Amino acid sequence: MKKKVVIVGGGFAGLHAARVLGNRRDVEVTLIDRKNYHLFQPLLYQVAMAALGEGDIAAPLRNMLADYGNITVFKGLVTNVDLETKTLTTDFGEVSYDYLVLACGVQHHYFGNNDWEEFAPGLKNLAQATEIRRRVMDAYEAAERTSNPVERKKLLTFVIVGGGPTGVELAGSIGEMSRYTLSRFYKHIDPKLTRIFIVEAAERILGAFDPDLSSRATRELEKLGVQVWTSSGVSAVDANGVQIGRERIEAATVLWAAGVQAQEIGKTMGVETDRIGRIVVEPDMSIPGHPEVFVGGDQACFTHQTGTPLPGLAPVALQQGKYIGRAILSDLKGKPRKPFSYFNKGQMATIGRNKAIVEFKGLKFDGAPAWFTWIIVHILYLTSFKHRVFVLMQWAWSYFTLAHGARLIVNKEWRFYGSNRKGHTDE
Amino acid sequence: MKKKVVIVGGGFAGLHAARVLGNRRDVEVTLIDRKNYHLFQPLLYQVAMAALGEGDIAAPLRNMLADYGNITVFKGLVTNVDLETKTLTTDFGEVSYDYLVLACGVQHHYFGNNDWEEFAPGLKNLAQATEIRRRVMDAYEAAERTSNPVERKKLLTFVIVGGGPTGVELAGSIGEMSRYTLSRFYKHIDPKLTRIFIVEAAERILGAFDPDLSSRATRELEKLGVQVWTSSGVSAVDANGVQIGRERIEAATVLWAAGVQAQEIGKTMGVETDRIGRIVVEPDMSIPGHPEVFVGGDQACFTHQTGTPLPGLAPVALQQGKYIGRAILSDLKGKPRKPFSYFNKGQMATIGRNKAIVEFKGLKFDGAPAWFTWIIVHILYLTSFKHRVFVLMQWAWSYFTLAHGARLIVNKEWRFYGSNRKGHTDE
Repeated sequence: MKKKVVIVGGGFAGLHAARVLGNRRDVEVTLIDRKNYHLFQPLLYQVAMAALGEGDIAAPLRNMLADYGNITVFKGLVTNVDLETKTLTTDFGEVSYDYLVLACGVQHHYFGNNDWEEFAPGLKNLAQATEIRRRVMDAYEAAERTSNPVERKKLLTFVIVGGGPTGVELAGSIGEMSRYTLSRFYKHIDPKLTRIFIVEAAERILGAFDPDLSSRATRELEKLGVQVWTSSGVSAVDANGVQIGRERIEAATVLWAAGVQAQEIGKTMGVETDRIGRIVVEPDMSIPGHPEVFVGGDQACFTHQTGTPLPGLAPVALQQGKYIGRAILSDLKGKPRKPFSYFNKGQMATIGRNKAIVEFKGLKFDGAPAWFTWIIVHILYLTSFKHRVFVLMQWAWSYFTLAHGARLIVNKEWRFYGSNRKGHTDE
Repeated sequence: MKKKVVIVGGGFAGLHAARVLGNRRDVEVTLIDRKNYHLFQPLLYQVAMAALGEGDIAAPLRNMLADYGNITVFKGLVTNVDLETKTLTTDFGEVSYDYLVLACGVQHHYFGNNDWEEFAPGLKNLAQATEIRRRVMDAYEAAERTSNPVERKKLLTFVIVGGGPTGVELAGSIGEMSRYTLSRFYKHIDPKLTRIFIVEAAERILGAFDPDLSSRATRELEKLGVQVWTSSGVSAVDANGVQIGRERIEAATVLWAAGVQAQEIGKTMGVETDRIGRIVVEPDMSIPGHPEVFVGGDQACFTHQTGTPLPGLAPVALQQGKYIGRAILSDLKGKPRKPFSYFNKGQMATIGRNKAIVEFKGLKFDGAPAWFTWIIVHILYLTSFKHRVFVLMQWAWSYFTLAHGARLIVNKEWRFYGSNRKGHTDE
């Protein structure tokens, strides 16, 4: 009898677990994801910043798993997990499993202020990246049109809430785009006057890095016109800006990169979760008392190696996914599972061209060497992901030329007739 | 005093009029478009069919006009034209002109049944192309999930209303994709069983072409599994299919390629329009009695050359745009305007790989020679448009390999919190 393995989520953890199990005779794999694509999330901010197109960092899960005859992919939504009957409830019926791999990831969260989302989108999927691109580019369009200087200033102000890698990448990109790319495209405004703020509640940005590196990153951001406000907790976000205690910044565009929370399904299962909803796992990535249920990637809280949870990084998810696949194969062979161990390849964050920071086995460096390291690592990952040399070339081209050529504002509304039809001209 | 030229619409006509006037000392040009991009519309169906990404066929108007110091671009909406005071009302205030160029294009229309749009999207801009891609790919995803054979049949049925070039291209692409590309990606369905219909009210498809060529195109569509229903006027469209008199096809996906109508602004100006709302123009493309107001591209009804209106094709719009720019320059030099004359480069339509039809100066051919002609012409146009060799290479690659690799279903909704949050898994 083949064992039924169900994997929920097609991110780095789910995809790599599936690949390890692919074409193995003794397992039948079902991968369920709400999206039909795998996303190279480390470069998602480049789609939001119009440097890359959607297709450059995403590929249909079906393409990526087409060579495995024993893997079925369903685009669907899991609404309940019954650990006792080993059954999932989905929007297309019940699915039973022998092994379950939960790799559902995290979402941005607003610390109890979900109404802020309307004014400050997060960045976790392609729809959100498109929305951010639309807001950023629309702000410049509106600034070019207005004759009101106060309104123009507000339109040319961007606040990024949160100073982790994503916040730094977004702020750095806006800085670079406004200082180097956009100037020659506008006649009525000077994009170099764009005000950019990173608002961070902690005492420094990039808290996961060495304090010295985070200080260097702050200096590099400043060179791109980004002002870093630390020890600054946001107390309100509205359509016109952000409130930080008694201080206030008027901004047409606020982006949210401040915090994440695991998908809620963990909370509904009656298992132990941590402060941000991640499921606490055993040394073998399984749920206590349920060796047949694994959790991997951002959704897992794994503390057995360093005493603190492993960070939500692509390499962690990727290694956990592979480990879980191998653990299932060990079971089937009757071998014991070895505990999971993360092989730390270091961490890096990019700020702009020739601006990045890298921590690698005690080494710390920044500037051009760090940036080239960042480029090389991402080129290697991206090509292994897409297998397409053209994408790589286009990406390198647009990155080196600072092109931001994908600055397309695509309407949310596709309908032409009806209430949304406000005017008379071309659309 | 510099003359103020206002161009409404950044399609082929508007863009080329602007370029002729670019960097001329005696004119100041304002181009207004609701979109921030110029679209290479002849390949829009390839975005809808996941063969190309959005950025491959669209570029920001600002990029395309950046080298002209005398051209200002506004993303905006024109809501009224006052021919007497020479003033436009827009959503960002009033704009006055010495010369006005209207090039607002056309929209799909539903012959008085605008409520059909919900069930049968048209294809005129990127938002609509994304919507069609979402519907087509979602239909396959739902078919893979369902265990109901009647439902599955409906999900694998696609009706294209209208047998003009766009309808033929859409139907041919779905045929090709279902027969050659998708088979290896689905485990529970056979995409080769996909039913595809072109429903055309006239007695033959591609009515603008020679009857012999349209008959050959019908045969080539059949080879891709497309059934052509002629003399078939659609009497109703709903969420489950189309009604054609007493006949009915149950289909989850209906696409509209049946008719166009000029933007309504023509009707509000008190000038003569034709049956589909196009503005009737003089031999110099101007409005009768208003030599300072030109209409170009699909929005113009120009009958002086052949007795019938020139067709809504990119080469017509492009030539008219250039002509209008030159006519304005002639005025400024005090020279008389020559009448517009369309240099007919023939017409072509593509059905699939090695399948196309071409009419060129009395020559008529189809099959592989026609397809290679189509490819070469579009490669030449597209490169002149993007100036980017990488895009061309990627396009050629995905076209030759039938890749359809951009099959991404991007959600309309970017928000995570609130009423749209239905489930517990990743998205």
